Amino acid sequence: MSKIQLSKISTRSTKNITKEAAKKKLLLLQIKLEELQNLMYAEGKQSLLVVLQGMDASGKDGVVKNVFDSVNPLGCSVYPFKHPTEIEMQHDFLWRVHSKTPPKGMIHIFNRSYYEDVLIQRVHNWIDEKEVQRRYRHINAFEQLLTQTGTTILKFYIHISKEEQLERLTERLTDPTKNWKYNKQDLEERQYWDKYMTAYEHVFEACNEVPWNIIPGDQNWYKVLLITQVVVKTLESLNMKYPRVEESLMLETLQGNAEKVDKRKKLK
Amino acid sequence: MSKIQLSKISTRSTKNITKEAAKKKLLLLQIKLEELQNLMYAEGKQSLLVVLQGMDASGKDGVVKNVFDSVNPLGCSVYPFKHPTEIEMQHDFLWRVHSKTPPKGMIHIFNRSYYEDVLIQRVHNWIDEKEVQRRYRHINAFEQLLTQTGTTILKFYIHISKEEQLERLTERLTDPTKNWKYNKQDLEERQYWDKYMTAYEHVFEACNEVPWNIIPGDQNWYKVLLITQVVVKTLESLNMKYPRVEESLMLETLQGNAEKVDKRKKLK
Repeated sequence: MSKIQLSKISTRSTKNITKEAAKKKLLLLQIKLEELQNLMYAEGKQSLLVVLQGMDASGKDGVVKNVFDSVNPLGCSVYPFKHPTEIEMQHDFLWRVHSKTPPKGMIHIFNRSYYEDVLIQRVHNWIDEKEVQRRYRHINAFEQLLTQTGTTILKFYIHISKEEQLERLTERLTDPTKNWKYNKQDLEERQYWDKYMTAYEHVFEACNEVPWNIIPGDQNWYKVLLITQVVVKTLESLNMKYPRVEESLMLETLQGNAEKVDKRKKLK
Repeated sequence: MSKIQLSKISTRSTKNITKEAAKKKLLLLQIKLEELQNLMYAEGKQSLLVVLQGMDASGKDGVVKNVFDSVNPLGCSVYPFKHPTEIEMQHDFLWRVHSKTPPKGMIHIFNRSYYEDVLIQRVHNWIDEKEVQRRYRHINAFEQLLTQTGTTILKFYIHISKEEQLERLTERLTDPTKNWKYNKQDLEERQYWDKYMTAYEHVFEACNEVPWNIIPGDQNWYKVLLITQVVVKTLESLNMKYPRVEESLMLETLQGNAEKVDKRKKLK
């Protein structure tokens, strides 16, 4: 049995915080996040990769929107990984994600990721256990490669209950503005809930060199607050600095500018 | 001391074969190679990655030209890896090569490769020993990833003597048709010859899960023959088959065609 049992982890807030208090906190965090992203872009020495995983309707799109909406899109890109294309299927499972890893200075968000290759593929027995183990090793080596090259990886599993999922899938049918999100297949995948939970638990154990953040997901406001907190705290820990112009160059230029300003004043 | 000592390996043919006999053999091999490449493309289940390494003027370009000239360019692409671009330098050292790995059905040739990142970078002490060891591990994991996904990797080191190199570099200065290949830096790099040999020897030992082919390179005709032999033998060992049309579909279509042919005959 896995050490982490999702059934024992709450899908709701266990902290004594109201929705209103959370919203106030979030506003302050978003200002910080905007500043930190700007700093990362300006410094250009490190990067951040955010990996979002979770069951259908766990609210991954909502995280992208509500956590990262305030940051400058110049320094932040989102990559959703859906069913692989024909070209992608002609390559190893890391090929399509490697080309989308963040260069220095950037934040990239993976909405689903290479972890699907040890989740959906395993749940449906499209790959055997030997291949699962091989992929775990390749994922660990891959994350190490990125980490050693200045990329910080933040992995989030959005943890919702089976009941909450049903409610949200139903809403997609009844709410016209959500109809476009409805997919018959989601209900079919729901039958594999327990197998998915087991597959996730195994992933948390086998691919934990970069640790997972398990985020209670039934309340959207709480989920967004928690993830924003982790992102801000992580960016703050990176000790980034705005690059400074060399002092001699700065003095020279300021002097030159001062002379020009003087001349213009005389002309007036 | 390394197990493989390049100074003890001949840079010339040690076999009893004349240049003329080699050329005849090569012609036959090239016909086979053309057929095998066509088969690989048609089958679309496996791929081949050829990695070419060697000192300046060892004749890597010549290998591309003289070994692969006869194959259909539709199924064969060459990727030279030179000094990394600014964008490439914002990523891990495998990023730029991963995107160029062959999809199923294709032969890709790397003229220089990710091995430069543990050769030139090490010789000039741009990276420390710890990083060299890390990169060895990443290279092994990367080659394993490709191998497990149906890519056969063939690694060639073209082994020339220091004297032969000087002769060729001098020829680049004196032969107007070769002037364009002359690069002042080549002579500077030549000073690091012994350090390069040691770096190569270490690579042969540390990254040997996919074995290296050390090819005597002083005689171009011999080098081309040897490499073509290895490529043909390897492709032959892959048990590739032309995909067949399903028998029922074949019969149906043939019958349909027969009727059309009958009608046309009557019209005449």
